[in-house]
Amino acid sequence: MANDAFHLNDISVATLLERQSLKWRRYEPDVIPLWVADMDFPVAPCVQRVMEKSTAKGDYGYALRDGDQPAMAASKAFACRMEQKFGWRVDPADTLVINDLVQALFASVIAFTDPGDAVAMQTPIYPPFRDAVRDTGRRIVANPMPDDGRRFVIDAKDLAERLDGNVKLLFLCNPHNPTGRVLERAELEKLAQLAAEKDLIVISDEIHSDIIFDGRRHIPFASISDEAASRTVTLTSATKSYGFAGLRCGVVHFGSKSLKQRFEARIHPRLLGTPGVTGIDATVAAWTSGEPWFAGALDHLQSNRDELIATIGRDLPEVKVRSPEATYLAWLDFSALDLTETPYDFFLNKARVALSPGAAFDPACERFARLNFATTRPILAEALARMVRAVRGRS
Amino acid sequence: MANDAFHLNDISVATLLERQSLKWRRYEPDVIPLWVADMDFPVAPCVQRVMEKSTAKGDYGYALRDGDQPAMAASKAFACRMEQKFGWRVDPADTLVINDLVQALFASVIAFTDPGDAVAMQTPIYPPFRDAVRDTGRRIVANPMPDDGRRFVIDAKDLAERLDGNVKLLFLCNPHNPTGRVLERAELEKLAQLAAEKDLIVISDEIHSDIIFDGRRHIPFASISDEAASRTVTLTSATKSYGFAGLRCGVVHFGSKSLKQRFEARIHPRLLGTPGVTGIDATVAAWTSGEPWFAGALDHLQSNRDELIATIGRDLPEVKVRSPEATYLAWLDFSALDLTETPYDFFLNKARVALSPGAAFDPACERFARLNFATTRPILAEALARMVRAVRGRS
Repeated sequence: MANDAFHLNDISVATLLERQSLKWRRYEPDVIPLWVADMDFPVAPCVQRVMEKSTAKGDYGYALRDGDQPAMAASKAFACRMEQKFGWRVDPADTLVINDLVQALFASVIAFTDPGDAVAMQTPIYPPFRDAVRDTGRRIVANPMPDDGRRFVIDAKDLAERLDGNVKLLFLCNPHNPTGRVLERAELEKLAQLAAEKDLIVISDEIHSDIIFDGRRHIPFASISDEAASRTVTLTSATKSYGFAGLRCGVVHFGSKSLKQRFEARIHPRLLGTPGVTGIDATVAAWTSGEPWFAGALDHLQSNRDELIATIGRDLPEVKVRSPEATYLAWLDFSALDLTETPYDFFLNKARVALSPGAAFDPACERFARLNFATTRPILAEALARMVRAVRGRS
Repeated sequence: MANDAFHLNDISVATLLERQSLKWRRYEPDVIPLWVADMDFPVAPCVQRVMEKSTAKGDYGYALRDGDQPAMAASKAFACRMEQKFGWRVDPADTLVINDLVQALFASVIAFTDPGDAVAMQTPIYPPFRDAVRDTGRRIVANPMPDDGRRFVIDAKDLAERLDGNVKLLFLCNPHNPTGRVLERAELEKLAQLAAEKDLIVISDEIHSDIIFDGRRHIPFASISDEAASRTVTLTSATKSYGFAGLRCGVVHFGSKSLKQRFEARIHPRLLGTPGVTGIDATVAAWTSGEPWFAGALDHLQSNRDELIATIGRDLPEVKVRSPEATYLAWLDFSALDLTETPYDFFLNKARVALSPGAAFDPACERFARLNFATTRPILAEALARMVRAVRGRS
């Protein structure tokens, strides 16, 4: 099995508990943490090599890479990768390299809207999307994703009805966190048409675009058409698929020169800072040489996903779940269990498994939770067994 | 000699040229780079250890430190250090941890002034001070530092005259880059009095506050009085004195809760991002355990400074220089040489020594250059010998 070759099951709970990570240190050691979107695998060898090389040299001063600012190396690696993976040609000069994508969400809201304006987004949604709107004095326009009996889908009709003149921005998350949907060309084209009609700027968070299962293809929103590109800011980062979120590094791509100018007229790039060189070096290594490792990681994640969906179908049939097309996150609906507490509290207390509480993604989703399956098979199996026992053992 | 114990002279040009650093890669390999404010020494053992430990574990995910966000560890280390070194008690909760201090300069201008407002600063000055004002559509009010025959001084009378109602902010740089002055209590008190009279916010960049010679003492501006603190934002970072600017990490301290609130009402902290965990870990290590190494580095720097001043006095007596009281930077006035090009161009072309051009610090200082003496003694001696030969060999 490909994943065995990459030893993704070799890491032990004891080793993971030695990490000084948010995922493994937030809860007591007997809790299995399947929450924050971090992977439990050792990083790709190319990432580890670049870190070891930099540490061996003790070379931590103001850095230059290939005769330029380090950020340009990340921008160039981004451009190469977009063309190779998605056939999308971009100019490195149209990017900004920043710490993390939450920073980019806040910056985009401030740059492209005024207080009182509204930002539309498909819900449920990764909580910082909500924070970036609410905490800057803007208004959230929620466009819920209904389950069409097969999967969660974009409700373009509902969105169109909600797009009043106050909505200036559409926050897109594709692949979608937490539903795991990979939006298809027709869906993206419909959104692009709406954006054009209503003159919206689209902020497209595509951080999960590597983690796509079953041979599906990710389509960058800005690659749909020149018109779509001209109004699209694409956000991505290698940290999610290569497991180094602590080092920080994200790329913001503007689909037109004028969009970048408009952004920079409100947000000076030096206000955002540039990430440390370890984050940049790791990003360049991952995007340039990380594909062989990632192929193994992806096999492992897909196989974990299949195990998760099979276990739920067999042992927890009351739990509604759609098999994620992307991401290492599953969005679970526990409503039919009629738990007396939230699923988050129930599984933390009764199964010692930490999920992400559904209400953080959507106030209407209190009976949901998100499960992160980017761990070893034994850990995932143990967590699922505990969850099944807790549900079956309810009094 | 203390510095020998720390092997600060052991590093060779060949090793330095292997660095991927801005300082050593910007120019051709035959140029001795005495420009950007980075040191040529290996980092402190405690910094190297923390980097090696983190690399050995490959632990790069979302991080936790002592049960809290990593930024809090840097804030706590900052608070401990301020009390121990300067007897200044601060609350870690009154800080923000950011990438770099240039980011903080831009953020402060945007938070505390409006376009068209003015920001006062002592000139010459570290170029990003100028950028942060000009690039955000504000106006620079220059308060030149005259040479009183002994050293560069604050001209408080001139400053008072320039403080019209448009000046909302005073950018202080203490110790001062590029003159190397350590402002004394009387000078700081005079500035605090002016700030109170004119209701100015003071942004005090104290990044060089470790690098103080001849037993002088740094006084944090905010420690002058509660009144001064209430209007002061202090900026500092371990990266300058411990040599890891590429990793990024700076601390912004607000002298009152209401000042922080006022800042955050205009600049949401999540817009600024948080630095990668390597920069934070290195900062905590430096501030917690770096003092023994730094004492040796400081001895070395002071001895380099003495050698520089002695050489100039003996071999380049036309060059005016005041012995820096702080920083590893010397501000050299080459006016009397009547060079036909700027000193920067002259020494780059004729001596193959790269200095920082004076005009970047003050348009009126075209005949000045800044020299960074944080290198090994042999490299410094070679650079000075080349400079002397170039001046003496002029036709």
